[in-house]
Amino acid sequence: METGSGNNGRNRIALKIQYDGTNFAGSQIQKNARTVQGELERALAILTKENHRIIFSSRTDAGVHALEQVAHLDLDGTVSLQRLCIALNGIVEKDVSVVNAYRVPARFHARFSATEREYIYCIYNNPNRSPFARWRAHWARETIDVDYVRAVLALIEGEADFASFCKKKSALTERSTVRRITGCSAERYDDMLLISIRGNAFLHNMIRVIVGTTLWMYTQGKRPEYILEVLTSNDRAAAGFTAPPYGLYLRKIYYNPPLTSMNAAF
Amino acid sequence: METGSGNNGRNRIALKIQYDGTNFAGSQIQKNARTVQGELERALAILTKENHRIIFSSRTDAGVHALEQVAHLDLDGTVSLQRLCIALNGIVEKDVSVVNAYRVPARFHARFSATEREYIYCIYNNPNRSPFARWRAHWARETIDVDYVRAVLALIEGEADFASFCKKKSALTERSTVRRITGCSAERYDDMLLISIRGNAFLHNMIRVIVGTTLWMYTQGKRPEYILEVLTSNDRAAAGFTAPPYGLYLRKIYYNPPLTSMNAAF
Repeated sequence: METGSGNNGRNRIALKIQYDGTNFAGSQIQKNARTVQGELERALAILTKENHRIIFSSRTDAGVHALEQVAHLDLDGTVSLQRLCIALNGIVEKDVSVVNAYRVPARFHARFSATEREYIYCIYNNPNRSPFARWRAHWARETIDVDYVRAVLALIEGEADFASFCKKKSALTERSTVRRITGCSAERYDDMLLISIRGNAFLHNMIRVIVGTTLWMYTQGKRPEYILEVLTSNDRAAAGFTAPPYGLYLRKIYYNPPLTSMNAAF
Repeated sequence: METGSGNNGRNRIALKIQYDGTNFAGSQIQKNARTVQGELERALAILTKENHRIIFSSRTDAGVHALEQVAHLDLDGTVSLQRLCIALNGIVEKDVSVVNAYRVPARFHARFSATEREYIYCIYNNPNRSPFARWRAHWARETIDVDYVRAVLALIEGEADFASFCKKKSALTERSTVRRITGCSAERYDDMLLISIRGNAFLHNMIRVIVGTTLWMYTQGKRPEYILEVLTSNDRAAAGFTAPPYGLYLRKIYYNPPLTSMNAAF
């Protein structure tokens, strides 16, 4: 048994996963629906001939993508991490890819060990609709001033009650709607406007409502400071629309120590 | 009747069209298959309540994309070009988009008036498969030296018999397999290798066989000059594989005078 495993001979492994969310009913397993977790657990069952549970760092909704989702699982004995990646990628459908695997301590938990999460929201900003941006970015026809977006986002950095920026149901069921946004940025690359938001954790739909509210405020000609009125109202109705899921990408999950300091497949 | 129309009161209009080729069985109309031409003619029939034929500048195969395909059609009376674009975009499925419309002389022909065509071939060049490049680029695992690609492409510029670089059937049925390549380039943007090829016209699969042969030569460790042996053999069997359709993008059709000098919708 490996030193530091302490998990009845099982070894904890973290996977770094990428997926195009278009044809998934979200990350989390569901009956009668295709999910990322279901797809990976199916591949793992074929590979190991037993059922394994995979725990994801963050849930993503139907249509939401991931550039670096992280998940953990326990496997018996020692396995080659590289072989595991190659074997899983040989089984799963090509809209999901296992990018890397890491040997992690038994106390590592994909969700609870995560210190921060970072998301990117993509806006295709052109008078003409693009067939290529169809399931990859939200289409905004009117030219958006990136400095305006930056000014709005700067005002929501720090710890606050984000009850206005989540599904009403979440505001009622979550123990607390206080979250801490540690960094925001907005950059334009030709027709693409990329908004990046990093924080300790996010409420359901939080990024999408922040983005939708920013765009709505812009088209309504509101000053950037208006976002503070929305924030302090603690009322979802004060905010703007929920930006569509297909513009959202889970960019990165942060751990301390970072996954990259672990024994990795590649 | 408009001056310069001279077409029995009908006005010739050129459309600039963009499409994601993934869910099309190619550009050209077919029975029992979804095509770009079929989709546009369907929309036009709904709009005008009559059947119209749309002539494309170049055929693209199933899975091949277009950033700027050009087509022409004739419409009775005067129509607002802007309204035409907006109305068509309101009817067609969202994997095709009418980007612009131009009022062109009756002698304009999308195919026969074209002086040159430019294509881009996208290669996702990373050890890991990307779910996002899936139907958008060819995946090459091994790092490709962009200077090698440039050296190969430089050797095929100019007029030559490209019988080695097309479908065997085309080599038999085309009146001539001589074509003129007027410019090639290769650029790397992070993991994406973009190959651009411009010429007067192209044989069936010509760009895909040129790209496949270049990649095959690279992995086989052949000198760039080997492409000349393939070229002079006039034998498809001497060339490499046909790169997959989903990496190919029809980039631009050139006309003289250019479409942009015409009366346009936007």
